[in-house]
Amino acid sequence: MGWEAFSEERVQLISQYIETRLDRFEQSISKQLHPMVEAMRYSIQGGGKRLRPMLLVTAAEYLGLPAERVLPAACAIEYIHTYSLIHDDLPALDDDDTRRGKPSNHKKFGEAVAILAGDALLTEAFSTMLDLKENEFSAEQVLNCVATLSCYSGVRGMVGGQFLDVTKGAELIDSLPELEFIHIHKTGALILASVLIPTCLVATDEETKINLRRYGKALGLAFQISDDILDSEANFRYSRGPRKKPKPNYTQLTAPGEIRDRLNGLIDDAISCIDEKKGQTLIDIAEFIRTRKS
Amino acid sequence: MGWEAFSEERVQLISQYIETRLDRFEQSISKQLHPMVEAMRYSIQGGGKRLRPMLLVTAAEYLGLPAERVLPAACAIEYIHTYSLIHDDLPALDDDDTRRGKPSNHKKFGEAVAILAGDALLTEAFSTMLDLKENEFSAEQVLNCVATLSCYSGVRGMVGGQFLDVTKGAELIDSLPELEFIHIHKTGALILASVLIPTCLVATDEETKINLRRYGKALGLAFQISDDILDSEANFRYSRGPRKKPKPNYTQLTAPGEIRDRLNGLIDDAISCIDEKKGQTLIDIAEFIRTRKS
Repeated sequence: MGWEAFSEERVQLISQYIETRLDRFEQSISKQLHPMVEAMRYSIQGGGKRLRPMLLVTAAEYLGLPAERVLPAACAIEYIHTYSLIHDDLPALDDDDTRRGKPSNHKKFGEAVAILAGDALLTEAFSTMLDLKENEFSAEQVLNCVATLSCYSGVRGMVGGQFLDVTKGAELIDSLPELEFIHIHKTGALILASVLIPTCLVATDEETKINLRRYGKALGLAFQISDDILDSEANFRYSRGPRKKPKPNYTQLTAPGEIRDRLNGLIDDAISCIDEKKGQTLIDIAEFIRTRKS
Repeated sequence: MGWEAFSEERVQLISQYIETRLDRFEQSISKQLHPMVEAMRYSIQGGGKRLRPMLLVTAAEYLGLPAERVLPAACAIEYIHTYSLIHDDLPALDDDDTRRGKPSNHKKFGEAVAILAGDALLTEAFSTMLDLKENEFSAEQVLNCVATLSCYSGVRGMVGGQFLDVTKGAELIDSLPELEFIHIHKTGALILASVLIPTCLVATDEETKINLRRYGKALGLAFQISDDILDSEANFRYSRGPRKKPKPNYTQLTAPGEIRDRLNGLIDDAISCIDEKKGQTLIDIAEFIRTRKS
């Protein structure tokens, strides 16, 4: 299942919204600060798959919300993801010179600007989320989105995972549960948040909520496993060089067959949580992660 | 006018709240993530004056709100201030090895953890702000606080100022308006936000709002000027060494008498905006900034 086959229209909608919002933002601030927006834009336009906003929009549609209404939240989650990549690429962290075939943010703009561009995107994510108010959601609903974003992207989620990833080091992780604990935080949390945020925006029955949470959790871990598989094959890929600093990785701890089994089990579990009559795209996203090549 | 003379009780209330909240936060997360909280706590407990939360609480009292009700907002603003110091001290930015007489965060925990501790505090500031909901404010009011925090701490405010500070460099600033533009963003914005946030939490007449805004703007710039004066005297102070990377500074552009005049003018203007019958502490804070020695 190719990504473009089912995502094209939605991804275009998301990217266009992100672009337009950045334009508006730039126009609203002093000219002297435009170079700061340029550094933010550089990484936002880096050509990612928009997986997280795509998931958010698709989960919203699954719950009966039109994509257009949740675009501010989709944009917010992409800002958080992008800031995390900028900071992650810094010399003190992963020390990656390239990102998606381009120089990483600090290679292009210098370390100081890259740190600040990350801070700016992280901060602006919350302003972006508040734009939901213009789409006829209640203040209470928007507050719950802010709470979810902050919870899953901070120490209890993504930043906590980054912290363990950085401080534990590949050589200190010797069990799968330990590795999965890191993965669930570092990568899983933001993917889970992407499917949970729409549940804050519309009345959802408890069973659907529980199932979406299970889908998001399984998918988040599955995505990191598929990333580990791709990383272990990295020498053969044009867009990723081998990492300078090796990270805790599934492929160090398990045989290739086992890691595939774990991935398949998680994807099957995720799909089992979705009503296929109205959730085909959520299923397609899961199948894409099962077999992705980039 | 000494800081302790009028601030002691409020600063203690604020510091205790911050401490208790961090304890609760730590207890609510997995043991593996406690070292991350330690890095956050290290800088939060760094022994600052708590100027911004103190201003926030005092402005709230001026508007008739009890200090206890706004403590989550006071805590949020201190988190933002603290994260900005951690990132500012990094080698790629100011490259400061010490902060308030202690090793700076990256000297103590390493650069990677310092970057993440900053990200964590920035993210957690928004969770903290949401705790206002427990103090009987409406969702709408809390959303306005989130909007104010995000606006004044991002590109339109503090981060924008940091960006200019970093990219322009001391040698490129040759006029006072240019320098003040940076100061107003880098330092002024968060001080202004501290007095504006309480106006989101209680019905306030337009005149009082305008006056508080003017007070906050004047005070924010005055604070940075007083900082520049202290910096220029830095060799004689135990707690500050001379900076490794010189920053754009008032004392480069003006004679000592002129800079004092500018500071006095701003403080007088700030004080003129406050009703002295109920705003003595706001006036005391302004007088403290006029004459502060640390």
